[in-house]
Amino acid sequence: MLGNFSYHNPTKLYFGEDALTFLAEELDQYGPTVQLIYGGGSIKKSGLYDEIVAILRSCGKTIVEDGGVMPNPTADKLRQGAKIARENKVDLLLAVGGGSCCDYAKAVSVSAYCGEDPWDKYFLRFEEPTCKIIPVGCVLTMAGTGSEMNGGAVISNHEEKLKIGHVFGDDVMPKFSILNPRYTMTLPKRQMVAGIYDIFNHICEQYFSGTDDNTSDYIAEALMKSVVASSRVAIRAPEDYEARSNIMWTATWALNTLIACGKTTDWMVHMLGQAVGAYTDQTHGMTLSAVSLPYYRHILPYGLPKFKRFATEVWQISPLGKTDEQIALEGLAALEGWMRELGVATSISELGATEEMLDGIADATFILDGGYKVLTKEEVKEILRESL
Amino acid sequence: MLGNFSYHNPTKLYFGEDALTFLAEELDQYGPTVQLIYGGGSIKKSGLYDEIVAILRSCGKTIVEDGGVMPNPTADKLRQGAKIARENKVDLLLAVGGGSCCDYAKAVSVSAYCGEDPWDKYFLRFEEPTCKIIPVGCVLTMAGTGSEMNGGAVISNHEEKLKIGHVFGDDVMPKFSILNPRYTMTLPKRQMVAGIYDIFNHICEQYFSGTDDNTSDYIAEALMKSVVASSRVAIRAPEDYEARSNIMWTATWALNTLIACGKTTDWMVHMLGQAVGAYTDQTHGMTLSAVSLPYYRHILPYGLPKFKRFATEVWQISPLGKTDEQIALEGLAALEGWMRELGVATSISELGATEEMLDGIADATFILDGGYKVLTKEEVKEILRESL
Repeated sequence: MLGNFSYHNPTKLYFGEDALTFLAEELDQYGPTVQLIYGGGSIKKSGLYDEIVAILRSCGKTIVEDGGVMPNPTADKLRQGAKIARENKVDLLLAVGGGSCCDYAKAVSVSAYCGEDPWDKYFLRFEEPTCKIIPVGCVLTMAGTGSEMNGGAVISNHEEKLKIGHVFGDDVMPKFSILNPRYTMTLPKRQMVAGIYDIFNHICEQYFSGTDDNTSDYIAEALMKSVVASSRVAIRAPEDYEARSNIMWTATWALNTLIACGKTTDWMVHMLGQAVGAYTDQTHGMTLSAVSLPYYRHILPYGLPKFKRFATEVWQISPLGKTDEQIALEGLAALEGWMRELGVATSISELGATEEMLDGIADATFILDGGYKVLTKEEVKEILRESL
Repeated sequence: MLGNFSYHNPTKLYFGEDALTFLAEELDQYGPTVQLIYGGGSIKKSGLYDEIVAILRSCGKTIVEDGGVMPNPTADKLRQGAKIARENKVDLLLAVGGGSCCDYAKAVSVSAYCGEDPWDKYFLRFEEPTCKIIPVGCVLTMAGTGSEMNGGAVISNHEEKLKIGHVFGDDVMPKFSILNPRYTMTLPKRQMVAGIYDIFNHICEQYFSGTDDNTSDYIAEALMKSVVASSRVAIRAPEDYEARSNIMWTATWALNTLIACGKTTDWMVHMLGQAVGAYTDQTHGMTLSAVSLPYYRHILPYGLPKFKRFATEVWQISPLGKTDEQIALEGLAALEGWMRELGVATSISELGATEEMLDGIADATFILDGGYKVLTKEEVKEILRESL
């Protein structure tokens, strides 16, 4: 059953090889000062930086530089970015990069005028913004997080060893996002497959909850099947436009609230993965893949009908002559097989986590309800130990 | 492959049993004069009219009555509605009813200030609105057309025996739509099943085109499977909230541009059905069902791989030991079986069409490209004859 909900996603998307040609008309809708947000400089190598600077200049914009956004943007960087935005009276935050740049831009958008420490306000106390919000636009160069069409931002705090996400309302969603699948093709394979697993896991987190018949779950299965099919092409042929375009589009719809409409969601794999990330600073998607199988095997008995459906609908496991549990376990085995095809991490030790870190990681893991089983702290430790 | 496209759907949706409680806060965003658009009076019987009038009054609105919208709203009615809106300087068009009311409201929204005959401008010449557009809100009482989250409107002209749709841009999409599945439960069964087939056919029109791997097609299959599963519950138990909520939500996503993103679409079943509707004035969904099977059997050889995929993915037809054509035909046989379960029309003669009308219906049928085969006028006649 679809429970009560509201849905509003005003982000305008431009998708395809010509998508950047629409940037100028979007820029026209904002004031003269643009904070240009990007990462470690790969967009300078690819030439995209120069293209965008040329468009900004041709639109008469003043560019305020804000490069160096790290893969897991930190609270310190956020504080600096908010200061830059405020001091320059920035009219638009233009993020050019992957989910980290886009997340960071959204966090800056609500922090520039919030009048206090944004880490405390938004990521420790989960307050809603009441201040002026600076509009955000996005030119995406990586497929994965879905940040281009949602209101979420994940920020890390190394001193406190915490990595925390906050989903803001539709005012914080990007006003526009430019999605050109070709931009994703220059990524190293490790980042591509981490992004692909991130997409898949976003879908899982919203799928593995509830027991009723629900349109959202059918759409979730469709997105899972599409990303699995396209990933199998992309790992052999990373420049296959068909595959990369489907992966990019699936990423957007995997985490823009659609497949969560009217149902409960879980998000425990993200809580576990983010805690691992806070200790190892590893790529987000890899931290998710490393804890997924132990987590799903742990909760399988509590959500058996859905895990059975996952097996037959997503992985075409034949149910003939098998118990429900056998079918469900074969589904997880198929998922594991696909993870090995991708080459994503299947243990946290390969990401640098050690036995000694387990207590700390467990303590940094937020325990959420919404899934098939609310974990105890002991179960969190057990799952982490099985993930080693 | 996903071709280049843009996606922007700013309609805000409130879904569920409590959805109407959000009407007041939406009304606050518009001026004092509301044109209240509804159909033949079923909302007066159900009590919904009184509820809405009470909310409008409590928000201090002046109500301009515009009832009597017919199931296939006419050009004459549109001209009258536009005059009412203009003369009363209406600030919001509030449609309470099914797709016809919502379509009509959108047509009025672009016609009040267009300065010429709206039928000629929008439905014969397909021009885009350049005038002031009056905002539209929608309280939906029937699931089917998807009109609550798109920019489309279909208008009939009985004198000219034409029924024509125009898809306007995102400025014409409803600003908000209120979707309470309980409102759909008072519908007679014939209208419920016509709506269900309408939903399914919207998906087919976007699915049966293109040959490549495409996320949009996976989502289309998910929506088809969801509506088939829920329809089988709803025809036995029309008051099953789970089924009716899934049907309502599927209808919205079947025709809000999502599953057409990055691909070609067909829409020939709608062209044929609308021409039948112009001659018989029958329920939209029934005119679609009456021509579907002859049309699909006709184009099957040109789109065999997709019809095969339709059979295995949507209807779980086993492919073992069969030719592609056999598999594809079994898929259409499964579709026919489901149509008979629903009890929708499978011939145009049962809708009142006669042999003598065939030439006229064929002449009123717009021939579109985008599907697997661009029909000739002779093929249109042949399909209509097979639909008798």
